[in-house]
Amino acid sequence: MKNSAVLLISCPDRKGIVATISDFVFNHNGNILHADEHADEGSNLFLMRVEFDPTEFDIELADFPRHFTPIAEEFKMQWRLARSNYRPKMIILVSKYDHCLIDLLYRHQSGELACDIPLIVSNHPDNQAVAEFYRIPYAVLTVAKDNKQASEKRLQSLIDEHNPDFIVLARYMQILSGEVCKRVEGRMINIHHSFLPSFKGAKPYQQAHARGVKLVGATAHYVTPDLDEGPIIEQDVIRVNHALSPERLAEAGRDVEAQVLARAVTWHAEHRVLLNGDRTVVFH
Amino acid sequence: MKNSAVLLISCPDRKGIVATISDFVFNHNGNILHADEHADEGSNLFLMRVEFDPTEFDIELADFPRHFTPIAEEFKMQWRLARSNYRPKMIILVSKYDHCLIDLLYRHQSGELACDIPLIVSNHPDNQAVAEFYRIPYAVLTVAKDNKQASEKRLQSLIDEHNPDFIVLARYMQILSGEVCKRVEGRMINIHHSFLPSFKGAKPYQQAHARGVKLVGATAHYVTPDLDEGPIIEQDVIRVNHALSPERLAEAGRDVEAQVLARAVTWHAEHRVLLNGDRTVVFH
Amino acid sequence: MKNSAVLLISCPDRKGIVATISDFVFNHNGNILHADEHADEGSNLFLMRVEFDPTEFDIELADFPRHFTPIAEEFKMQWRLARSNYRPKMIILVSKYDHCLIDLLYRHQSGELACDIPLIVSNHPDNQAVAEFYRIPYAVLTVAKDNKQASEKRLQSLIDEHNPDFIVLARYMQILSGEVCKRVEGRMINIHHSFLPSFKGAKPYQQAHARGVKLVGATAHYVTPDLDEGPIIEQDVIRVNHALSPERLAEAGRDVEAQVLARAVTWHAEHRVLLNGDRTVVFH
Amino acid sequence: MKNSAVLLISCPDRKGIVATISDFVFNHNGNILHADEHADEGSNLFLMRVEFDPTEFDIELADFPRHFTPIAEEFKMQWRLARSNYRPKMIILVSKYDHCLIDLLYRHQSGELACDIPLIVSNHPDNQAVAEFYRIPYAVLTVAKDNKQASEKRLQSLIDEHNPDFIVLARYMQILSGEVCKRVEGRMINIHHSFLPSFKGAKPYQQAHARGVKLVGATAHYVTPDLDEGPIIEQDVIRVNHALSPERLAEAGRDVEAQVLARAVTWHAEHRVLLNGDRTVVFH
Repeated sequence: MKNSAVLLISCPDRKGIVATISDFVFNHNGNILHADEHADEGSNLFLMRVEFDPTEFDIELADFPRHFTPIAEEFKMQWRLARSNYRPKMIILVSKYDHCLIDLLYRHQSGELACDIPLIVSNHPDNQAVAEFYRIPYAVLTVAKDNKQASEKRLQSLIDEHNPDFIVLARYMQILSGEVCKRVEGRMINIHHSFLPSFKGAKPYQQAHARGVKLVGATAHYVTPDLDEGPIIEQDVIRVNHALSPERLAEAGRDVEAQVLARAVTWHAEHRVLLNGDRTVVFH
Repeated sequence: MKNSAVLLISCPDRKGIVATISDFVFNHNGNILHADEHADEGSNLFLMRVEFDPTEFDIELADFPRHFTPIAEEFKMQWRLARSNYRPKMIILVSKYDHCLIDLLYRHQSGELACDIPLIVSNHPDNQAVAEFYRIPYAVLTVAKDNKQASEKRLQSLIDEHNPDFIVLARYMQILSGEVCKRVEGRMINIHHSFLPSFKGAKPYQQAHARGVKLVGATAHYVTPDLDEGPIIEQDVIRVNHALSPERLAEAGRDVEAQVLARAVTWHAEHRVLLNGDRTVVFH
Repeated sequence: MKNSAVLLISCPDRKGIVATISDFVFNHNGNILHADEHADEGSNLFLMRVEFDPTEFDIELADFPRHFTPIAEEFKMQWRLARSNYRPKMIILVSKYDHCLIDLLYRHQSGELACDIPLIVSNHPDNQAVAEFYRIPYAVLTVAKDNKQASEKRLQSLIDEHNPDFIVLARYMQILSGEVCKRVEGRMINIHHSFLPSFKGAKPYQQAHARGVKLVGATAHYVTPDLDEGPIIEQDVIRVNHALSPERLAEAGRDVEAQVLARAVTWHAEHRVLLNGDRTVVFH
Repeated sequence: MKNSAVLLISCPDRKGIVATISDFVFNHNGNILHADEHADEGSNLFLMRVEFDPTEFDIELADFPRHFTPIAEEFKMQWRLARSNYRPKMIILVSKYDHCLIDLLYRHQSGELACDIPLIVSNHPDNQAVAEFYRIPYAVLTVAKDNKQASEKRLQSLIDEHNPDFIVLARYMQILSGEVCKRVEGRMINIHHSFLPSFKGAKPYQQAHARGVKLVGATAHYVTPDLDEGPIIEQDVIRVNHALSPERLAEAGRDVEAQVLARAVTWHAEHRVLLNGDRTVVFH
């Protein structure tokens, strides 16, 4: 893989940001490979992604913060630097449905998804075998009805132990407390089914069937305390028809869920997604 | 155009329906060109569309009901016969937005949409010119806030006068009374924007923008007294991104609205859509 | 799974086919669940798929041919009967690329793809592990440059031994002789990349990149002696852009290949695909 | 519309381009609204689009070249500056098929497509009426078989007279000479049908039907002397099935042609498309 570094920035919009950033990279002998920006008119926020070749960069990347902080402070930037030779760590949470898990593990193994997976956590033992096949540690964390707090505490300590860069809910059917969601804000990705119109409550594919929808979809989003309502990263749909039973609708839905989640996770892992309030900006 | 007749049937499911229908057509020397069926497990309803060549049919089509009624009664069928040499009559209702109207008029003139348009009704004069260009009569029916009943009465008398086979709401922004909706059930098609998730209330594209959706969609459906909730005929979406302003989202939405409505209207005009409770069956 | 039988028919078009078939099913006390037909104007061929519930059918299905043959002969039909309680046998051939293989094995295991897989054959040992994980026998059949005939003979004897209902080339990179292709005509499915425009020769994704295509696609088709030109079962595309390297284009292509092949194989296994000369008719 | 200026640049890649450009804009008191770039590894070409707010820019835009030329020369740039308050001029060429023409005229009138249309040129009088409806001058330029050179000369003088920024072949069925194509390279956009696989020669929809394609597509591209092979701007497809006649395939194809051409023209008019050898880079 190409040696590169990605600088992600968001700050209040004003003149001179691009010039300042590109001067900084150039003056330290970096070569900009890609740069993308978005100035949001509504929020007056400026978002930028700069990918540069640091081969001849005259600052050690470990030393980058010290040199960059004065600029960041002047422009009131939120920023982070990601290096291509660092593989982000991703923990996957999963329940029984395995379609998203298997898809992610396959993309990880094939090299498409450049990250490390130190751990899979599940409230069921069902997916142990496939985890073993791909040689990923698998922790079963039983969630008892009368003991949600204890299991969430154990989950939190597993997360703390492995210190992942981000967490993926690959069809994890347990509701996380607002406290956990808050701690991983912008770093936890969830996938859920989506329909036109949307259906609340249980058995969504039964509802979609009863309503005769012609499309079945999925949405990948960052988790916020308001579970299915966080900033959307990616969405897609698949065409269905009247001949499909609710089970077949659900199968079609699983296909689109796996694809949408894979794209969202890949873009996040490649540092292409920036938060813009309740929205995301995805730089392709 | 090929000479053909389309028989549409729905009835409680039981053995022998297909055999009875196809025998009837065959015994009277008709040739089945297409036949599609759907047996709905949930509702136990059987739905069928039979298109046949009546060239050598030994019953006058005007006389068809008399011969077919005994079968229909035995099987408790709801049915209708449509003949290809009869062009259905469609009335279009429109307000100011013209994208769906213009798309339908173009498809009508090009021969793609095989129906007659005796009248366009609008609560605004804005689309008079394009109606004239396509030589379609255009009635302006001002809707006053304090006089909704009177204008709806006039609308109803215009409909009665022209006796259309179906009515299309091509972005008609007035709410019709439950009574009108009831009278045209299964014969009035509406188009509205659709999102994942769906948004209630005003300025939907502003809401969609604020929520950062990655898809913008549209749904064509039959009108029921519950305005935006009738049986869905067709849906589609278009991909959008963070760089689009609410206005640009709305432009993308208009494109997909026009396409979705055109497909729904064409399928209805070709007698491809059957009602199955709150759903539709569309035979392609 | 629901008890059902599927009767697939193709014959010269003439009056009375639907009536004859549906009478036959009805008179023997079968209940038609779905029936689809297509009368091809160009070729004058009539194609039909009838799915019926044989629970009360008064002919043993094993005895079906004896009762149906007189009808088949009268109408010069090609036909076959498939029973839902018989799981078709599918052999998969694969080389090194594993994306299609893994996708099919997952759908098989999840129950989505209702067939048995007695054997995977490969010219490489690479995919042995995943075959073992899914407990499917895996035969390595090395193809030597100077000994193509011998390996094809061994392949043929493996096929003869397992007598599959159909064979899937899940990215099998060896060219099969015209003789083999001929023997499995209509029963061997291949997947290959497709572009607008199409590219001949080696390194197609390099060519697609050089040409700046905006879509990357795949086609699943029946194998004929003219390798990449058999009757098309399914096609799809995925959107790409200028920022993607040839490797990334190929990754996008693999996604669409796996999806398209899975759909084609599922439809074939459900007896939804009929040959119509150089084309297919797919009844959904 | 927002006051903005777009600077388009392509030059050999090297360090410091982004810094130099953004410094230039900043030092003259411009505010960068959007900036997109692409460094092409294969060709070593760097392409950039910078949109900035020139409200407080201290150089008159008319005077921009004088100030920017030293930079352009140093980096060996090809460049152009477009101003949002200048509406580009587009000439449309059309034959009999009117679907693309009508779509473009509608988008122009609705304000979606921000350009002026000084002239429509056609080798047939058929589309005169719609041109008049939209109040666009329409020149009939009969192309006689024995006099192609004379009509092309007249076409060239019409182009010279109106001096358009770009020309759109909206289903113009005459082949232009290599000389004309050469003169408008990068400024003339064509639309043609596209299939998987592609078909050469006449009656493409008949061929697509005979081959049983499941997708019908379209490609918009810049015209080069090699007529249907210029740099691709946009492509899309629409799903079709076996039940569609060649005429219906062609109708589906017309829909996708109009959409694809509209997107390509809009992007070109918004200065979003850059040539990269035989490819395009489209900045969204």
